[in-house]
Amino acid sequence: MKDLRPTLATGTAAEQAAYRQAVAAGLGGFLETKRGELLAAAPDAAVLVDAIADLTEGGKRLRALLAYWGWRGAGGTAAAAEAVRAGVALELFQAAALIHDDIIDRSDTRRGKPSVHRRFERQHRMQGWSLAADRYGLAAALLAGDLCLSLSEEAFTTIGAPAGSGSEARRIFNQMRTEVMAGQYLDVLEEVAGPSRPADAAVDRALQILRFKSAKYSTVHPLCLGGALAGGSLELLRSYAEFALPLGEAFQIRDDVLGVFGDPAATGKPAGDDLREGKRTVLVGYTLNHCSGSERRYLEEHLGSPLIDDPTIEELRSLIIRSGALAAAERMIEELTATVYERLDGLAVSPEVSGALRALADAAVRRDS
Amino acid sequence: MKDLRPTLATGTAAEQAAYRQAVAAGLGGFLETKRGELLAAAPDAAVLVDAIADLTEGGKRLRALLAYWGWRGAGGTAAAAEAVRAGVALELFQAAALIHDDIIDRSDTRRGKPSVHRRFERQHRMQGWSLAADRYGLAAALLAGDLCLSLSEEAFTTIGAPAGSGSEARRIFNQMRTEVMAGQYLDVLEEVAGPSRPADAAVDRALQILRFKSAKYSTVHPLCLGGALAGGSLELLRSYAEFALPLGEAFQIRDDVLGVFGDPAATGKPAGDDLREGKRTVLVGYTLNHCSGSERRYLEEHLGSPLIDDPTIEELRSLIIRSGALAAAERMIEELTATVYERLDGLAVSPEVSGALRALADAAVRRDS
Repeated sequence: MKDLRPTLATGTAAEQAAYRQAVAAGLGGFLETKRGELLAAAPDAAVLVDAIADLTEGGKRLRALLAYWGWRGAGGTAAAAEAVRAGVALELFQAAALIHDDIIDRSDTRRGKPSVHRRFERQHRMQGWSLAADRYGLAAALLAGDLCLSLSEEAFTTIGAPAGSGSEARRIFNQMRTEVMAGQYLDVLEEVAGPSRPADAAVDRALQILRFKSAKYSTVHPLCLGGALAGGSLELLRSYAEFALPLGEAFQIRDDVLGVFGDPAATGKPAGDDLREGKRTVLVGYTLNHCSGSERRYLEEHLGSPLIDDPTIEELRSLIIRSGALAAAERMIEELTATVYERLDGLAVSPEVSGALRALADAAVRRDS
Repeated sequence: MKDLRPTLATGTAAEQAAYRQAVAAGLGGFLETKRGELLAAAPDAAVLVDAIADLTEGGKRLRALLAYWGWRGAGGTAAAAEAVRAGVALELFQAAALIHDDIIDRSDTRRGKPSVHRRFERQHRMQGWSLAADRYGLAAALLAGDLCLSLSEEAFTTIGAPAGSGSEARRIFNQMRTEVMAGQYLDVLEEVAGPSRPADAAVDRALQILRFKSAKYSTVHPLCLGGALAGGSLELLRSYAEFALPLGEAFQIRDDVLGVFGDPAATGKPAGDDLREGKRTVLVGYTLNHCSGSERRYLEEHLGSPLIDDPTIEELRSLIIRSGALAAAERMIEELTATVYERLDGLAVSPEVSGALRALADAAVRRDS
């Protein structure tokens, strides 16, 4: 996201920077209040908030920024408190999802730091406590994620009536949560049930998972949420969704490519992490359909094996390249991106908002982290 | 709860039965709608809702009933939709907490059925899926709990303005969630850090954990939430809390006694489950302070060992009895209960509400399950 500003008009860039800062300050202030409440009542539990605060300091803020420009595009005023609160709620929701996702995927790192369960494991070891460090890490991270999910909701409610019962924004927020959890479940299910399901539908299944767990959540819902909060018409929100869905798909396919081929120094995750976790992405689905029987057995054998070594990851990578899957994924990203830009041109928003959305779209699909 | 009705006036009992039925119907209808949404979008994910629906069919509905009588005591009308929705939200929150609690405690059973993670493990084994069944069970249950937590919130929001931004009911709902998660964390922390902390403060630490993770959550917050929704004065809510806190404490100490001495046929949990899980309850804290050095080492050695056998559980039980801990716990329950009844008499509520609260209090502290 660092090379984003040059492509934005100065005023738009300054406005976006101010919003980012307001979200960071909002997050910091909100969590500081919660930390104070816990310190007063149960000081030992304040570490839960510390873990959340450290995690939410990082990240691209893609969802908050999309909500902001969705808000602005629907006529919301610059730097409004509602938009900042929505950004805070979205960032907290994302943090909650990441904390639990890292438990599920047994990920050691997140945003270049230890994942939350590993952070608590380390605390256990440093203190020389009793019983198993990994069980404590899991329990503490599970509870930190639950708290973060609750705080996300608490922050969202502070928006007031525009996000209250029966509002379109509330409907979107609810739908987003249900879909992310359903999508995460489909992802977990595919890891275990995928091998016994028809291989020729593996790409389609991967695309469905990707839409639920990521595409709609990362782009469609935040953008529409911002628009709904500002009272945007259903027609505007529909056009937002049509623009944002291919963007979210391209975003996630880029993520999948980075999960196998990304540079650990840039992604903050170990090389080939997705293979170790057994993620059945579009890349994997395509490879399964375009390789020999023995190659398929090799892939199935090593996918999801936590102890997979670097030479094997190298071998799997070259298999994915040889099968044409990497090229196919890059082609999909390109085609989806073309659709994104076409639909962006059709959005009934100001040139400033359009320019900001274009820059976000660029950053989302061209990123290396 | 089965011997509750005889102590209630007929009209009150009928009103309470109608409310219970309305909450059950509300839960069923709400979850059916969610299930339908998932079936339409991602049929494979509907099992998450099935697990939640099965779990919420059971339970004593203590929290929902307290919310109801809190509502009625503050002038809310009988059978009002707001009170039913609050009950649905509280029951869903409780289900979410149980699903994640059972992951943390590695509990095999809940409400006489397999716990949710075991349910999903079993599905994995029956389907003959790939990779490890226990990892799949954990992941699926973690996501089912997250979904349940979100749905609890979604149900709560449908109450509308009385539970909206800035309302007292919302403040209580928020506080309840934070405190439960903090309390659960303190519980987990005590399991690992307890052995290296001063033994003579073990009972005090156990009481603090009990207040956060259970007492306030099980009684104070539901009762006050109901009262706040009906617009009860802060004075009334304060008197609710003063009545409900000792009730919640007695309720949880009863739970701790049942966790060590309860009849598996009545509790739906294996005998001595709390010892296996390493729960450092008031019972354990008291025992540590009233036994010999060798007994203490024996207790520390076996607490939290998943493979602890039945003869050892028998030995630990007799140690707890010998130390005077069981008698002390029963005495605490008695004293707390006396305070409860004293404060109940001081509540400015109708005789019907007072009678209903008395019956709930009886059932909470005299139960065997």
